[in-house]
Order: sequence, then C-alpha cells, then structure tokens
Amino acid sequence: MTEKASEPSKRGLVYIFTGDGKGKTCAATGVVLRALGHGMRVHITYFLKGEYPYGERNTLSKLPNVTMAGFGGPEFVDPANIKSEEIEQARLALATAREAMLSGNYDLVVLDEVNVAVAFKLVELDEVIKLIEDKPQNVELILTGRQANTELVKLADLVTEMLKIKHPYDEGVLARRGIDY
Amino acid sequence: MTEKASEPSKRGLVYIFTGDGKGKTCAATGVVLRALGHGMRVHITYFLKGEYPYGERNTLSKLPNVTMAGFGGPEFVDPANIKSEEIEQARLALATAREAMLSGNYDLVVLDEVNVAVAFKLVELDEVIKLIEDKPQNVELILTGRQANTELVKLADLVTEMLKIKHPYDEGVLARRGIDY
Repeated sequence: MTEKASEPSKRGLVYIFTGDGKGKTCAATGVVLRALGHGMRVHITYFLKGEYPYGERNTLSKLPNVTMAGFGGPEFVDPANIKSEEIEQARLALATAREAMLSGNYDLVVLDEVNVAVAFKLVELDEVIKLIEDKPQNVELILTGRQANTELVKLADLVTEMLKIKHPYDEGVLARRGIDY
Repeated sequence: MTEKASEPSKRGLVYIFTGDGKGKTCAATGVVLRALGHGMRVHITYFLKGEYPYGERNTLSKLPNVTMAGFGGPEFVDPANIKSEEIEQARLALATAREAMLSGNYDLVVLDEVNVAVAFKLVELDEVIKLIEDKPQNVELILTGRQANTELVKLADLVTEMLKIKHPYDEGVLARRGIDY
C-alpha cells in the first residue's frame, strides 16, 4: 500500500464472484458494461466453454473498448476425466489473461470461470496467485466461477457468493448450502 | 400452466437477485446483455437512484432493443424518513414496468431495486404480486434489490442471494467510478 489514503480510486481491486447460484458471469458482464460506460478498457478471457453461444458475447463484440478471448471446447469439463487439450486450453487462457493484465492496454481484466479451472486443476493455483500478486496497481481483476479457492478468496478485496435459493432446474426449493470455501 | 411440457422455453420465468453482496444489478445487466445477444427486446425500470450516473446506463443507451426508465431522486432513500415524492416516484416506476410488461413490445422486463421499494413500503407488496400474476406467458421478469419479500421469493422461479463474503467498503475503500456506479 504505497498510495495515499486520499486517492483510494487509484488502486484497482480484485473481485471474486463465486457460489452455485445463477449470476456469477452475468455479474461480471454487468461490471464490464458499467466500466465501459465510464470509458474504461476491458479484456475478458473465458476459461471454459469457449465456443458456447452465450448471447452476451454477441453483444459485447459490437461494443468498443472491450476484447474477448475464448478457450475450452464446447462441452462441459468432466473433472473425473480431464483431457490434455483441456489443460492446454486453460493454460493458454491464463497466459492470455496475464498478458492482457500486464499490457497496459486494459483497466479491467475478467477471468471468467478461472475458479473452476483451478478447482479442476486445469491450471495451477500458484499461477493464479502469482497473477494476482503481479497485478499492476491501476488494473482491476474479476475472477468468476464456483468453488473459489480459499487462497484466492484471501487475496481478493471483494467476494460475493451467489447462493442458489431456487432454480427452475430444481423441483421446489433446495436447502440452502453453507459457505463452501 | 397451459403450455406443453415439451415447450418449456416458451414460459418466461421470474428471477430475483437479492442479498447484501455486490452483483445484483450487475447480474441483471448481464442477463440483459445475454438476452439482447439473442435478439430479445428488453425494458429496464430503475426504481431508485434514477439520476445516479451508473456507467452501465451509458452503455445500454447506445444499444438497440433496450429501453430504460429511471425513477427516484439522486439520494438514497432513508426508510426512517420517507418523502411523498419518493412514494410517487416508486409508484410511477411500477406503473411503467407494468405497462412495458403488458405492451407486447418486450421479452424481458427488469424491475431494478423493486425489492427495496417494497421493503421500504414505497410500493404495495400486493401490487408487485399482481404484476407477477398478470405476467404474459412469454415475458421474463427480473426483480433486483436486497431484502426480497418472502411472498415474491415464493412466486419466483429462480432466486439467487448475493452473499457478501468480503467488501472493500468494510475496509474503508470508497466507491469507485466505473466499477461501483
């Protein structure tokens, strides 16, 4: 902490949106839209489901000042049967996010689903910790995905857990889960 | 439920994003972006802080197929000292959202901060229940704001509670333009 207390806005923060409820990636997208509205420059790296036709990517691709990179195949990763291509894709994703963070071209970098990539051991926890430690002062980071690692939660400034109270895929109301990190 | 079980996608759902963590309005904005990317038409009524310079409204205002209406003054409502103008504004907001929902011009209608408007008794709970009951089959609704009323949670199809695990305001960091508003 070398900045003066009177200039808090100069320190870019690290956010985590985690939990099993709907809204993690959507919340990150919403922050992106807010940032763009204030003239910030944004990069989003999607760690998983790179080719999945999420509508927000269509919309974001038409906006200025935001770039995206998608990694991972169209299928959900099965943690019991990790493929070498999935590891390779996730490592490329991390390298891409890191390069964007250090490039000086972005004020906000989103690592979408990186928490899952760590939980599934597609990327090393230590590499993500190092990325956070190497973050330039003025860059904001957002990490999304369920099962956020405790070490990442400790390093983050803001952590929201999206708790699933009700989901249309379920029948009825589920018992509320505890905080699982 | 008159639709066939084989056509579940035709029934528009009711979503609630609530809780004290960051990400409720951002999650709604993210869903809006996703919906726009799929060609849906969207209306957003902001119940509170209508004139607050939220960055996402700048960005959304440049996109096609989305309209917005903002109500409420620039200051946060003090529940211990509700002003008649605040009640009037919130009622106008509800009427606007209702009209949008029934107009046939929108596939998704967001009632941003309506949960707070109900909790502060700026609008009648029964009026919001009636709005949900009168929802056309094909329209989706999103209700945001902390302190979602139990009756609304019962009526909703999907409810996520944003739980605050960590927040920089707790450690004396000020709200930052571009990220927090």
